[in-house]
Amino acid sequence: MNTLPQALQQLIAAFGRLPGIGRKTATRLAFHILNESAQDSEELAKAILRVKNDIKLCSRCLNFSEQDICPICSDSRRNQRLICVVEDSQTILLIEKTNEFKGLYHVLGGVISPLDGIGPEELHIKELLNRLEGVEEVILALSPSTEGEATSIYLSRLIKPQGIKITRLARGIPLGSSLEFVDELTLSKALQSRSEM
Amino acid sequence: MNTLPQALQQLIAAFGRLPGIGRKTATRLAFHILNESAQDSEELAKAILRVKNDIKLCSRCLNFSEQDICPICSDSRRNQRLICVVEDSQTILLIEKTNEFKGLYHVLGGVISPLDGIGPEELHIKELLNRLEGVEEVILALSPSTEGEATSIYLSRLIKPQGIKITRLARGIPLGSSLEFVDELTLSKALQSRSEM
Repeated sequence: MNTLPQALQQLIAAFGRLPGIGRKTATRLAFHILNESAQDSEELAKAILRVKNDIKLCSRCLNFSEQDICPICSDSRRNQRLICVVEDSQTILLIEKTNEFKGLYHVLGGVISPLDGIGPEELHIKELLNRLEGVEEVILALSPSTEGEATSIYLSRLIKPQGIKITRLARGIPLGSSLEFVDELTLSKALQSRSEM
Repeated sequence: MNTLPQALQQLIAAFGRLPGIGRKTATRLAFHILNESAQDSEELAKAILRVKNDIKLCSRCLNFSEQDICPICSDSRRNQRLICVVEDSQTILLIEKTNEFKGLYHVLGGVISPLDGIGPEELHIKELLNRLEGVEEVILALSPSTEGEATSIYLSRLIKPQGIKITRLARGIPLGSSLEFVDELTLSKALQSRSEM
């Protein structure tokens, strides 16, 4: 391995630090960079730097945004009385793709997880409470993990006393899957919440 | 998707141009860059640019190198009378890992492939012929594809008349695999080249 140029070794190491990129893929990517045009790789390098410089958090929903108020928050056609609480910006992407939701979002920045040292103070909960005036419903779209559940319960206890409706995503069997791959806990939830046809 | 900041969209597009990186992975990588420290992403961006600036081709073997003559070519302990011909620099990495080869390399830059418009002139064949003085054996380590085979035959016809021994990698069943996954052509080659135990 000592025969590799040092600059190439450094690039392989840098690629290898990205999530889901192992040493083999990192090597393949680095060689691709070596072989491609200087213009393409300059574009990639610049895009990386630009993302860090240009993008900050929306001052309302804390989603990533190039403006002080993100396009979703400043879109007056969206229902301002409906807030969907998510863990991170990627969840917003997923929900937007469904075209099912026309309210606003609020990014918590994670879920309460004492083992990882994440308490309510580490999350954007205060910011959420500060924007509840006039809001009719808060949808909790957090992960169905123990931490996600605990966070949902915590938020619900804080918000419900203000007379705001709290809902959360339905639990049940995922579409397109076969029943044999569904775990027992999901199946029992799906039975409990069965709906009439 | 229009809700994504433009800088983020550009980074996703740039990552998506890398080989083996689809839109989903590109999005995950871009969000990782957004979330990681500015230092880490600066390092990645700089490593990409440095690789393009600092690395050129070794003037002897045409492997990627930071020096005019690469560390392998300038290593006097290696057998200067033995040249292994490879398609690209990545093959050198693979062979070096075996610790089996102590000669020099020559990077062709591909194989002859008329359909892709790659003729002998597009490859570093002239450079190979120019460094054959004193060489005793040339090992052809090209892909076992039709194009690789054709290139091996072409090179062998050029070099053999100079009284130099030409060899190529052994063909046979890969180690660690089960016979049921071996294709018929490989199996018939393995039968033809069977060795006494």
